[in-house]
Amino acid sequence: MSSSPETKEREEGLSFQPNFDASGLVTCVATDAATGVVLMVAHMNDEALRKTIATGEAWYFSRSRNALWRKGESSGHTQRVIEMRMDCDQDAIWIRVEQTGAACHTGRKSCFYRKIESTDGTTRLSFIDADRLFDPAQIYRK
Amino acid sequence: MSSSPETKEREEGLSFQPNFDASGLVTCVATDAATGVVLMVAHMNDEALRKTIATGEAWYFSRSRNALWRKGESSGHTQRVIEMRMDCDQDAIWIRVEQTGAACHTGRKSCFYRKIESTDGTTRLSFIDADRLFDPAQIYRK
Repeated sequence: MSSSPETKEREEGLSFQPNFDASGLVTCVATDAATGVVLMVAHMNDEALRKTIATGEAWYFSRSRNALWRKGESSGHTQRVIEMRMDCDQDAIWIRVEQTGAACHTGRKSCFYRKIESTDGTTRLSFIDADRLFDPAQIYRK
Repeated sequence: MSSSPETKEREEGLSFQPNFDASGLVTCVATDAATGVVLMVAHMNDEALRKTIATGEAWYFSRSRNALWRKGESSGHTQRVIEMRMDCDQDAIWIRVEQTGAACHTGRKSCFYRKIESTDGTTRLSFIDADRLFDPAQIYRK
């Protein structure tokens, strides 16, 4: 496996060189700093990344709404960043956070409230850790 | 926040309906089942997802090589899947795995071996948990 000087620098260097995709985004995984549970997977553009670093609160870029978004700005369910890490090729970020309330817009602590299970060749989901911490109809009403 | 019957079913139902993007991929986060450390972020196409479910070993789709890829097929550093979860809108998968050896092609256990740190407005990376478990030049040589 050969690698260019650029790849070597990106993987082994200490320069912050986020590798944005064609849409200008990197993937961000947020985990609960206390439990290690994966809370959500979302995206950051350059501005979201800079605001997250500058403020210590998680900012994302919503692809569906095409808008910068401070986590918790509607719900109050903010994320305080405890640690922020970059992956090898600098196109994914891992943040360990203190989650206020629930991370998921459905009201659950984590977006990953269903297990994938397969029996007899049929794949289904089943609920796990799916208790709601809030009622989305109350929080996001217009 | 209104939601269509399709959105409701995708978020609250128990049907397995992976929401592939325009390239036919979902995002997959792999964490170490024992420690909760995020090992890597990668992608799965329909085939990788089905093979992972069927075999209990992680398969991915490499965007750079445009190829299906069994994790560890070159290095021997396979991932045994302990639990597999789907996120709310079914476009991201979380797998908890037993990692044989190292997850990262650079030889580290995790791809997230650098912290993002900011001082005086300058953002830099610093190594953390960056010990190599193998020498990539030895493992991937042709």
